[in-house]
Amino acid sequence: MSKSITAAETAKWLKERDNFLILTHRRPDGDTVGSAGALAQGLREVGKTAYVLRNPEITPRYAPFVEDYAAPDGFEQEHTLIVDTASYKLFPKDSDKYVGNISLSIDHHPSNTMYAELTCLDPTTASCGEIIYEILIELAGKISAKSAGCLYLAVSTDTGCFSFANTTANTLRVASLTVEAGAPHIKLNRKLFRTKSHARVKIEGMIYAGMEFHFGGKVAIASVSHEMMSLAQANDDDVDDIASLPGSIEGVQAGITISELSSTNDCKISVRSSPSVDANAIAARFGGGGHAMASGFSLGKPIQEVKEDLLEVLKDFF
Amino acid sequence: MSKSITAAETAKWLKERDNFLILTHRRPDGDTVGSAGALAQGLREVGKTAYVLRNPEITPRYAPFVEDYAAPDGFEQEHTLIVDTASYKLFPKDSDKYVGNISLSIDHHPSNTMYAELTCLDPTTASCGEIIYEILIELAGKISAKSAGCLYLAVSTDTGCFSFANTTANTLRVASLTVEAGAPHIKLNRKLFRTKSHARVKIEGMIYAGMEFHFGGKVAIASVSHEMMSLAQANDDDVDDIASLPGSIEGVQAGITISELSSTNDCKISVRSSPSVDANAIAARFGGGGHAMASGFSLGKPIQEVKEDLLEVLKDFF
Repeated sequence: MSKSITAAETAKWLKERDNFLILTHRRPDGDTVGSAGALAQGLREVGKTAYVLRNPEITPRYAPFVEDYAAPDGFEQEHTLIVDTASYKLFPKDSDKYVGNISLSIDHHPSNTMYAELTCLDPTTASCGEIIYEILIELAGKISAKSAGCLYLAVSTDTGCFSFANTTANTLRVASLTVEAGAPHIKLNRKLFRTKSHARVKIEGMIYAGMEFHFGGKVAIASVSHEMMSLAQANDDDVDDIASLPGSIEGVQAGITISELSSTNDCKISVRSSPSVDANAIAARFGGGGHAMASGFSLGKPIQEVKEDLLEVLKDFF
Repeated sequence: MSKSITAAETAKWLKERDNFLILTHRRPDGDTVGSAGALAQGLREVGKTAYVLRNPEITPRYAPFVEDYAAPDGFEQEHTLIVDTASYKLFPKDSDKYVGNISLSIDHHPSNTMYAELTCLDPTTASCGEIIYEILIELAGKISAKSAGCLYLAVSTDTGCFSFANTTANTLRVASLTVEAGAPHIKLNRKLFRTKSHARVKIEGMIYAGMEFHFGGKVAIASVSHEMMSLAQANDDDVDDIASLPGSIEGVQAGITISELSSTNDCKISVRSSPSVDANAIAARFGGGGHAMASGFSLGKPIQEVKEDLLEVLKDFF
């Protein structure tokens, strides 16, 4: 069983050691990348050697935040750390050799399986970046502009620029302190939250045009097919957070997004709901799961059949 | 000439007086409404009589924040205050009798014409709400949950949920403190920033479908005609912040929105630009003005002719 430690104890543990490799999670988002970048930078600033393991799935949007910390060939760490990663299932691709060998996991997911020797877990925070902030302050008393930029990426992306329901007073406090420390928040906001690619505009237009409303407008179902992605020339960055679209329409209590995976007979389904509807219970009926207001599952069927199955089950909820 | 006073001096001045009427600005937004509501609430909490003048242009989105403070018929104030209002031109409709009779103006616009006897102006803040926060803290040492909700409305709407270029460390700090004091930020975010009306979805779809790109994609021109508004069944709340749409597309340096006003021969034009393009200079060529990255003007011509005039002038900029 893993030993739980606080941010202050984590900082002390890091101070007494050296030569760290930091892992990010599968399909890396801004929180895991920003947390890893900030931690590597903060450790270097107190004289340590720290690198971030290359994540084969990193997208162009987030890659610049860790490029200065890419581990060189042949680097042999003494301690392997991982950030924002709840379980072995979420370990990055091609990282099997680290399973069972993590010294320290820093995370904010309540579902963390406590797989590491030491775990610094705070499930009350909206982002892992908030925990990294506390650790860096314990470590050095302050954060540099470079760490601050990474931390701003982490806290802002995990909360949809402070608009999601997970945002807390602490999220906004840490964001304020990163801006004070020199995070380029205006440039980052413009790029992350206020700029849409041409492909994004096209794919959103198609999704809205094809959206179906059921149960008196309480349920909205959106579909994203290979054909639509190809027509819009869209990539993964372009459909970031697309699952929030149907749930953000007035009156909708459950917003469901059906995305085709590798084949047209393989779909990923995301459910986003308002507090009155249990998204987790809907997903559970299909063998999936998640949180009360955000869940997901997969079905080996074409989009149209998934829709029919969904509507049958949703009769029990609406 | 108006006398400038600090937030602390403003609190002292308010403490020594009673019976206040608070005005909001023309076409009231979240900052003026939230600032007025928070100030009225804060004054009442220290035992004062304070009301907010009914603004005939208030929209359903913001009306609930000041409904508890509506001045009753026959209320005779001793002191008239106004918030977030740069000049007499921006005084609310039907308020001519207050021109020349304002005791105190609290504002953050650098263009404030210093029309009031006393002016508490801080042009470094993103929102007037940030100044009201300081005044209420000076007044009572804390803010109530009700004031906090109004202040959260003010700071969040004036910064596009902390995503606009005007957002500062102080904006985020005040937002954090309002959430700590009990502002219902999750409910407000959901309503203000994460919910689109069906009409909004329709009008956005039409705008994106009809958007024109010029000068190698550096200029995007959007049009909003009466016909589109009517087809989408859209009202003013539905097109809130619509001028930011063309400028938010990848690669666009100047995003221009042409909206038909009362007749098809009368258009309002908004220019939003990235730092490399002077939006104010573009508007100035048509007799308009504004800021370096956000400006506007009007032309008594149909949309198509406005476009032709614009493209001619834009040749000098691109």
